[in-house]
This record gives sequence, structure tokens and C-alpha cells, in this order.
Amino acid sequence: MSPAIFIDALQQELQSIQYGQNPPELYNPIRYIMSLGGKRMRPLLTLMGAYLFTDDWRKAVRPALGVEVFHNFTLMHDDIMDQAPLRRGQPTVHEKWNGNIAILSGDVMLVNAYQLLLNVEADKLAVALARFSRTAAEVCEGQQMDMNFETRWDVSEAEYIDMIRLKTSVLLGYALELGGLIGGADEETTLHLYEGGMNIGVGFQLKDDLLDVYGDPVKFGKQVGGDIIANKKTFLLIEALAQAKGALRDELIDWLTRTKFDKAEKVKAVTAIYDQLGIRELTESRINDYFARGFTNFDQINARPERKALLIQFARQLVERES
Amino acid sequence: MSPAIFIDALQQELQSIQYGQNPPELYNPIRYIMSLGGKRMRPLLTLMGAYLFTDDWRKAVRPALGVEVFHNFTLMHDDIMDQAPLRRGQPTVHEKWNGNIAILSGDVMLVNAYQLLLNVEADKLAVALARFSRTAAEVCEGQQMDMNFETRWDVSEAEYIDMIRLKTSVLLGYALELGGLIGGADEETTLHLYEGGMNIGVGFQLKDDLLDVYGDPVKFGKQVGGDIIANKKTFLLIEALAQAKGALRDELIDWLTRTKFDKAEKVKAVTAIYDQLGIRELTESRINDYFARGFTNFDQINARPERKALLIQFARQLVERES
Repeated sequence: MSPAIFIDALQQELQSIQYGQNPPELYNPIRYIMSLGGKRMRPLLTLMGAYLFTDDWRKAVRPALGVEVFHNFTLMHDDIMDQAPLRRGQPTVHEKWNGNIAILSGDVMLVNAYQLLLNVEADKLAVALARFSRTAAEVCEGQQMDMNFETRWDVSEAEYIDMIRLKTSVLLGYALELGGLIGGADEETTLHLYEGGMNIGVGFQLKDDLLDVYGDPVKFGKQVGGDIIANKKTFLLIEALAQAKGALRDELIDWLTRTKFDKAEKVKAVTAIYDQLGIRELTESRINDYFARGFTNFDQINARPERKALLIQFARQLVERES
Repeated sequence: MSPAIFIDALQQELQSIQYGQNPPELYNPIRYIMSLGGKRMRPLLTLMGAYLFTDDWRKAVRPALGVEVFHNFTLMHDDIMDQAPLRRGQPTVHEKWNGNIAILSGDVMLVNAYQLLLNVEADKLAVALARFSRTAAEVCEGQQMDMNFETRWDVSEAEYIDMIRLKTSVLLGYALELGGLIGGADEETTLHLYEGGMNIGVGFQLKDDLLDVYGDPVKFGKQVGGDIIANKKTFLLIEALAQAKGALRDELIDWLTRTKFDKAEKVKAVTAIYDQLGIRELTESRINDYFARGFTNFDQINARPERKALLIQFARQLVERES
């Protein structure tokens, strides 16, 4: 078994999903955003979670895609709220169509996500949907926190971690838990899967923040320093705001409040401030903490070693990624 | 048994629902819109549907409120799309807070609706949620059609009926069907309930269009002619546009395209055009058709006569309403 087989099964099924036809303004944006690709990390986690406990992992494919459709629904609505022009290098739905269509298509996508999750077997359906619903509400809570942070300069590390946990990590945890549930894992095991996925997810998001500043420009694929240019409240920035004192703090605030600046100069200057404060090392240390917690969670799971190795291997790629 | 007992049970349970606390920007708008009231028609239909077949109708209360929360979610998002300043005489959520909060709070409400529906018993859950999801997607389809109609002057009667069927009536049908399902009705019976609720719902919406023009100003409660002032594509207007020829058509188009006008004068003039075309009688005839179809659907249902009488009585109030 290799991840390529899981990915192929997901792609096959993705192509067979009928999202509906009329009115086209409602359903074309769904096909569009789903066609933009992405790593399909969440449904992959679901399939890996199922495969830990059953050979019949294919029964997890449609529910797994429910998680992926939900994720893409959040992207569609987040892009409206963030007024983002591009998503994966292509125009966002509200730019390509309009805001109202992006709201309403997103609403249908959330319904579609539940429809795909309805493919969980009857005896596990109530638990799968109750846990999904709790997770979905938490993702919205995380997005609201993220928006609230935009106008604040005093976000604490604990608040920031809580925000990314809700906005990003709980869904990774749920994706893995769902796979375990479908595969037949007991309650204790699905909890380990959830927590493991969530911890890896926090590390993953912190790594995202780190790579944006310290990534290898060749390997990273995106413009290094994009978050600095946009004043995005990343882990690095909130730590720097929490730690910088005196002249260094004044310099940081100055860069954050300038309306006109040379982008490369700002990236260089803010990175230098991060360097002086040891933000890189601090961030790496937190990333390692969360990844280590995730692997400890996975240690608690009783499954066939060669199948667990697949999951561990996948998680390792998330740890070691350069882009 | 009287409807007052159902209403009381719904109000009691509504007050006990915890929508969540943090962040407050996410959950306060939900409490706000749910507190604005409304007739609670949909959950009442669910309870009446359940009571047709079981004494234990209270087990339908939470799922019934799932339908009500869903309905209020659609109002919250529709109000953004329609840029409506008021809802039930109070500021809309996007006015009182902002558009982003209205999007995200609405998203959580849709999740909350599913959470309440998860209270359907396990052996009926998959059917209840599959039918709900289909209905929810159709409501979005209806809203998109309604928006598409705004820029068209050639909407046919069939298109219009299809739009209101999707936007409004399928949810009334589902509300009643859900009650029957929870009460233990068989598949054929739940279909009659669905179709009966849907047909009554189409009549109900057409009556809404009619009352806006021909309602008794004293009993109606809202400004008579509001739809005419706003050029709203009602059944009456699309029929008038379909039928008016020559000078009468020119006059109608003239009123629809004037940017400055005396409101009372416009209402009087457009109403006179409707009168000349016999639009009132045509609309009344269609309303009667749909109500009659609904009652025929209810005739097919095998339940205790005194319980059926409650439902019929409730439907009659919708038929005969003056506001």
C-alpha cells in the first residue's frame, strides 16, 4: 500500500461527485474551487486513519471528501471576509463571480459536506456527524478570532495557539479521527487519533508561519516575507510584539505602521528584528514540541506496525516540509 | 391538545439552547436573530406532523427547532445578499454588526441546525438528514434563482412558481414530513405530508404577494404596496409583465424604470394596471389551486381524525390569513 493509491481513489471519486446543475451560478463555483487542487491532506488523513484498522478503507472515501469539501467551503467564505483576490494562484470565487454567489455557493458546499458524510455507516453516523458539527463550529470560532486579532497588537501566544488550533488543527484531528471511527477503532483510539492530528496540525501551521520568513526562496514556491509585507499576525510577529522592548519595539511598530515602504527593505528589516529576538529558534522549538506531542499520541495507538508507519511517514513529511 | 401547547414547548426549548459563547461576535448574532420572533410556523408543522402518529411528540421538539434555526440562517444570509436594513422591524445582523460577522454567524447557524437535527432517533437519522440536506440545497437554489430574476423582465409563471417552491415551500414540506417521520409514519405517508406542506407553502407565498397589494391596510400590519415600490418580482408583477400589451405595457415599464416617483402614486398606478389585467383574480385562482392540492394531499393521510383536524385547522389559518 502506498499513499499514491489513496490519492488516486480520492481523485477518482472527486471526479464522480455531482454537485448539482441549476442554477449554474450556484454550482459552477463549487466545481471551480474543487478543481483548484491542493494537497488533499485532510481526506488523505481520513483514509490513512481507516486503513489502520480495516482493509475496506474505500468505504471512507466519500466521508473523507466531505471533510475536503468542508475545508474548501471555509476557504470560499474566508476569501470573501479577507477580500483575497487569489486562491492557489487563481481568482477567488467572489472575484470571478461576486460576493453574493460566493456566500450562497459556500452555503451549499457546507450542505454538500454533510451529504458526503452521510455515507458513514448507520451505526457510526450519529457520532461522526456530532463530532464533525462540533469541529465545524470550532473552525468558524477560529476564523472569528483570527479576524478579531487583525485590530489588536496585544495577542498572547496562548490566544494565538488557540486560534490556529480552532481554525486549522481541529479539522486535521477530526479527519484522522473520522478515518479511525469508520475503520472500527474504539473510542480511546479515536481520541488519540484526534489529538495526534490536532497536535501535528498546530506544528504544521506554525511551520507555515516560519517558512514564510525563513523558508528557502527556491524551495518555498511563494514569495518569502509575504506575511511581513501584509502585517499578518503570525506566531513570529505576535512573539516579536510580546518581546521587543525600547528602540527595537519602536522600530518594529514603525515598520508595521508605515503606509509606504520598499517591500524587500521591510522584509529584511523585520527579519533582522526577529533574528535579534531569537524568534526563529523559539518558533522552531514550539514546532518541535507540537510535533513531538503528536507522535506521542500516535504511539498510544494499537494498530499493525506497517500501517502505522504509513501515517507516521506522512506526518514526518509535514514536519520536514520546505514548502 | 391545542397549538398553544406546541408553541409553549418550542419556546421553552428555544430558551434552553446553548449556541456557544466565544467569540461573542460569532454567537451573539445567533441569539439576536432567534430572539426577533416570527410565527415559528415550520417547527409547529413538525410537531403537528409528529402528533398525527404519536403521543410522544416532544421528541420532535429539538429536530423541529433545527428547521427553525436553518430558516433563520437563510434569513441572515439572504439579508446580506439583499442588502436589507431591517428584519422584523429590527436592524439586520450585517447592519448591527457587519457583513463578515453575518456570513460567519450564519455558517455556524447552519451547523447548529444539523446539531439539533441530530436529536432524531438513530434508526431515522440518515433519512431525516438526507432529506434535510436535499431541502437545504434546494432553498439555496431558490435564493439564487430569485437573485437571477432581479435583472430579468421575462420571468415565466412556471419559473416563478419553481423559484418560490424551492426558496420557501420545500422547507415547509420538509418540516411536516420530518414530524411524520419522527412520529413513525411510513414512507408513503411522509411523502403526502411533504407534498401537502409544499403545496400549502406555494399558496402561502402567493398569498404573501397578493396581500402586499390587495391586503386590508388595517389588518396587513405592513405598508401595502411595498413590493410595488421596490419593483419586487412578485407573481403579480411577472403576470402583468407577461400579459400587458401596447400602451398598458409601456405605462407599466415606465413605472418600473422611473428613478424618481411619488410612492403612493406608483402604488395606485401599478395596482390599477393589475386591476385592468385581472391579476388579482388570476392570483387568487392560483392560490386556491395550490391550497386545494395541499388539502387533497392531506386527505390521503391515515391518522386519527381529531389530530388531523389540528393540522387542517392550522393550514386553514394560512389560507385565510389577512396579514
